[in-house]
Amino acid sequence: MPTRTSEFQGWARAHQARVEEALSRLLPAAEASPQRLHQAMRYAVLGGGKRVRPLLAFAAGELAGANAATVEVPAACVELIHAYSLVHDDLPCMDDDVLRRGKPTCHVEYDEATALLAGDALQALAFQHLAGLRVAARPEAQLEMLRLLAQAAGSHGMAGGQAIDLSAVGRALTLPELEFMHIHKTGALIRAAVLLGARAGDGLSDPETGALDHFAKCVGLAFQVVDDVLDAEASTATLGKTAGKDAVQNKPTYVSLMGAAGARSFAEELRAGAHAALEPFGERALRLRQLADFIVLRQF
Amino acid sequence: MPTRTSEFQGWARAHQARVEEALSRLLPAAEASPQRLHQAMRYAVLGGGKRVRPLLAFAAGELAGANAATVEVPAACVELIHAYSLVHDDLPCMDDDVLRRGKPTCHVEYDEATALLAGDALQALAFQHLAGLRVAARPEAQLEMLRLLAQAAGSHGMAGGQAIDLSAVGRALTLPELEFMHIHKTGALIRAAVLLGARAGDGLSDPETGALDHFAKCVGLAFQVVDDVLDAEASTATLGKTAGKDAVQNKPTYVSLMGAAGARSFAEELRAGAHAALEPFGERALRLRQLADFIVLRQF
Repeated sequence: MPTRTSEFQGWARAHQARVEEALSRLLPAAEASPQRLHQAMRYAVLGGGKRVRPLLAFAAGELAGANAATVEVPAACVELIHAYSLVHDDLPCMDDDVLRRGKPTCHVEYDEATALLAGDALQALAFQHLAGLRVAARPEAQLEMLRLLAQAAGSHGMAGGQAIDLSAVGRALTLPELEFMHIHKTGALIRAAVLLGARAGDGLSDPETGALDHFAKCVGLAFQVVDDVLDAEASTATLGKTAGKDAVQNKPTYVSLMGAAGARSFAEELRAGAHAALEPFGERALRLRQLADFIVLRQF
Repeated sequence: MPTRTSEFQGWARAHQARVEEALSRLLPAAEASPQRLHQAMRYAVLGGGKRVRPLLAFAAGELAGANAATVEVPAACVELIHAYSLVHDDLPCMDDDVLRRGKPTCHVEYDEATALLAGDALQALAFQHLAGLRVAARPEAQLEMLRLLAQAAGSHGMAGGQAIDLSAVGRALTLPELEFMHIHKTGALIRAAVLLGARAGDGLSDPETGALDHFAKCVGLAFQVVDDVLDAEASTATLGKTAGKDAVQNKPTYVSLMGAAGARSFAEELRAGAHAALEPFGERALRLRQLADFIVLRQF
């Protein structure tokens, strides 16, 4: 009999493969005109990444009684938004990075203008599929999913978080300011992944949705805290992206404000908070619980 | 009694004011955090432009029996997409332009990273409002509007057209290649404006929608042909953007391929095609007819 851990790994691998297949199908063909743009879009999305957001969507969908076939499109659309944000984030006028997921970044492999347009087109593609394919039982629920994802991507979510991040470089931030930034920059999209997965089902009460939302907030913040620890401690080879960047750029991080041990212990607190939020769901929340563990205990 | 022309001008001014008010309301407040990002978004959208796309949406809405209050959100959302595309198009890695609508471009007034994020957030904002506000009688129609707008913005529409444009600089294009580029770069969003306006009503048959689509294609291409003529002939002061750029950048245009007289006469042909497409609608299409005239006969 497999252990719980290896059983979770099997689930994760199967669902990573499922979203990879969905992404490949939803992206424009590499041979379709304009080819260079479409190749850059596929390059930026396929063959890399832990797919944490899609996994959260699948797990929340399981909890809400949706099957994986229904969740895969919203899961893929959240990942398209995440992938576009990485392409733009890596551009010279932003973080100016050359390595992502172990490969040259999109503007290095192609060129800046193509990377800019690939990001723009990936964002549009996410909304196109989320609107054009059947992803919920009722069209009203689908509109709500579109609204949630757009809000999470926009100036009160991810793009806003990146703007706060930019303005923070070289400045001394307080812990509450750092948290405010990350709730936007990474937290909003992680929250959208969980809520879209849950909406693909149809069986959650308002208090249940609220509990899930609290879980998503804990996990989103934990994800960032662990990212900061790994950036400070791991190597570029392990991460597949440039390590030690935060310190070089003098960026405020949980490690710079709390120390590595303090940050690790804060991540543990958030993991406990995430588990507590899931208590009302019992065994239905198994996958979400395992994902919270995976996010906090990962080494890459 | 006012002449038809001055009566049209009154209608256009009233609806330009209406969409301006809607845009101001739909954009995040300048004081809301992150302020610099929100200020850049407002700067890029408000107080300029002919608002051709919203006017087309209002006129198509009138034809389809929708009132202006229903059309104003889709009209504004199309304009948000247009405005974001101008911000990204003006960036140094794209057209590298410093003047737009008589003002410094967004990255000159703010900075490149802020302009990039402002464009990203404007795109998300368009889908957020189109999904979150009631813009059609049935939610299915609203989903179709979202799909249409996203497709028009993406790699098979506007972003794709810009990619083709980039790859064409300094190359000799044939007329069909030039047309293919413009059908994507400007045509797709103009078509979306007309179709979204019509969808806000609910009374068009499939053949009527087809006729409207043909009108939109003619008008979209005419818009670009006239743009080329104006770029070659008008001054920077009149245009509010840098004139003569196409020749300097050795870009293929209708003027470089057909000469100014040939391009003017092609624009006239397209205007006639647009009028012909509207014939089945009789007087209901008055505004669309007037807009086709305005687009071809404009001097700026």
